[in-house]
Amino acid sequence: MIIIKIGGGTGINLAGIAGDVARLDEEVIVVHGANAFRDELAAQLGRTTTRVTSVSGYASVLSDEPAIELLFMAYAGLRNKQIVQELQRAGVNAVGLSGLDGRVVQGRRNQGIRAQENGRVRILRDLSGKPQSVNRPLLEALLALGCTPVLTVPIADESGAAINSENDDIVTVLQREMDAVCVVQLIEAPGLLRDPAEPSSLIPSLTLAELASWEAAAGGRIRRKLLALRRLLEGGGARVIVADGRGEHPVADALAGLGTVLSSTAGPAAGLTA
Amino acid sequence: MIIIKIGGGTGINLAGIAGDVARLDEEVIVVHGANAFRDELAAQLGRTTTRVTSVSGYASVLSDEPAIELLFMAYAGLRNKQIVQELQRAGVNAVGLSGLDGRVVQGRRNQGIRAQENGRVRILRDLSGKPQSVNRPLLEALLALGCTPVLTVPIADESGAAINSENDDIVTVLQREMDAVCVVQLIEAPGLLRDPAEPSSLIPSLTLAELASWEAAAGGRIRRKLLALRRLLEGGGARVIVADGRGEHPVADALAGLGTVLSSTAGPAAGLTA
Repeated sequence: MIIIKIGGGTGINLAGIAGDVARLDEEVIVVHGANAFRDELAAQLGRTTTRVTSVSGYASVLSDEPAIELLFMAYAGLRNKQIVQELQRAGVNAVGLSGLDGRVVQGRRNQGIRAQENGRVRILRDLSGKPQSVNRPLLEALLALGCTPVLTVPIADESGAAINSENDDIVTVLQREMDAVCVVQLIEAPGLLRDPAEPSSLIPSLTLAELASWEAAAGGRIRRKLLALRRLLEGGGARVIVADGRGEHPVADALAGLGTVLSSTAGPAAGLTA
Repeated sequence: MIIIKIGGGTGINLAGIAGDVARLDEEVIVVHGANAFRDELAAQLGRTTTRVTSVSGYASVLSDEPAIELLFMAYAGLRNKQIVQELQRAGVNAVGLSGLDGRVVQGRRNQGIRAQENGRVRILRDLSGKPQSVNRPLLEALLALGCTPVLTVPIADESGAAINSENDDIVTVLQREMDAVCVVQLIEAPGLLRDPAEPSSLIPSLTLAELASWEAAAGGRIRRKLLALRRLLEGGGARVIVADGRGEHPVADALAGLGTVLSSTAGPAAGLTA
């Protein structure tokens, strides 16, 4: 099984991804973001999102009830169904689900974010949390019917309420529980870059040790991304490829090794074949 | 199996419905609208919906691409997930799907609406169509897992593209293909009324013959609703109850016979028990 994570930007080539998925022989589960769509909808509706930075340095959006409604509309609604539609048109029988549906992604609500606000530390408890497990029987039933699950936030908390979560964390839990052999992360860049402003600074491969030392030096959102990649690699079971979602054949190119290939051990990426 | 159709108004008591569903012993499939939520979102986004009236007298909204995006956001996104969340909180393992997901509702795109426009007849081809079948293996797999499907528009056309459809038509196809024994339609009124402005004019029961003669005399959207009810009754397999979705126990009250009970034969509604 391959997990394909589709980033939340507007430049992703959905039709190209859908065509690639249609030609794959392996089972696929898609996880996707929609942050650009959420932000655009929020702007059109005149809503402002509240961003907070935790004392440990991770930035995130405060998830209040209006923010969850935006997730329903932009992630579970607009973007999820756009992706399902592209896959259906390509002959892939996609089924779009938020984590809430069938509690397919079961989480635990955060106790509160320790956040800096005007130099003071406050505990902000919002509608966010961490994924703990997936509904494997439901996913397996869908796969057995030849369906391709397309997952996104929100996920379910302990009480069945919708909470926001990081898609990266969902991918980590999903890889572990579904024994996925490969995770392809499609973003709006050629892969991980040494210099975010310079596309030619692509890092072709990265070991776990290199990743950890980069993470220690980074800050903000990139640090959270690197932490998520490290956790994924530490699971040890999957090839991870961060690649360009904007090309003609994003998935086929990624599986051919274009992008950044991450491995949990040093040396050439073991077992990587197109 | 019981089909519960939840109308698209803002006054529906979702928590009451969810509690009732949790206490039912029978399998349930929910179909819901969201027209008030779609209209509100369209207004907030400054989008105008184009309404057309066909030459045969049926009014509908012209489904262009922006209209489909509104369906994604308001029906498959916001309202679908609100309903799933209420059911999950009540302990019902709801799975929300648009008809596009797993092609759970497969339709055929309309060839065009013959519409009156400034006194002239024009053929308008839009992204709308009629449901033809449901993905019964998918619905049965979900039900076998103890899940409760929650369905809404859009549905899939022949090519896998999203098209708008009448939820009433989806209910008719669903009842037939899933052999549902009862259809409860929850609206923002005590049931079918002789005088729409007078809640006390509730029609407690209605035969197929009475329905047909009323339909012949009606116009506009109510005529389409009556036509849909007639088609549902003509299937012959199900009790149909049109009842109030605003009360404390909308489903339990409907199953107890409060509202308008429709039967395909004359005489007291056979087999109607709470």
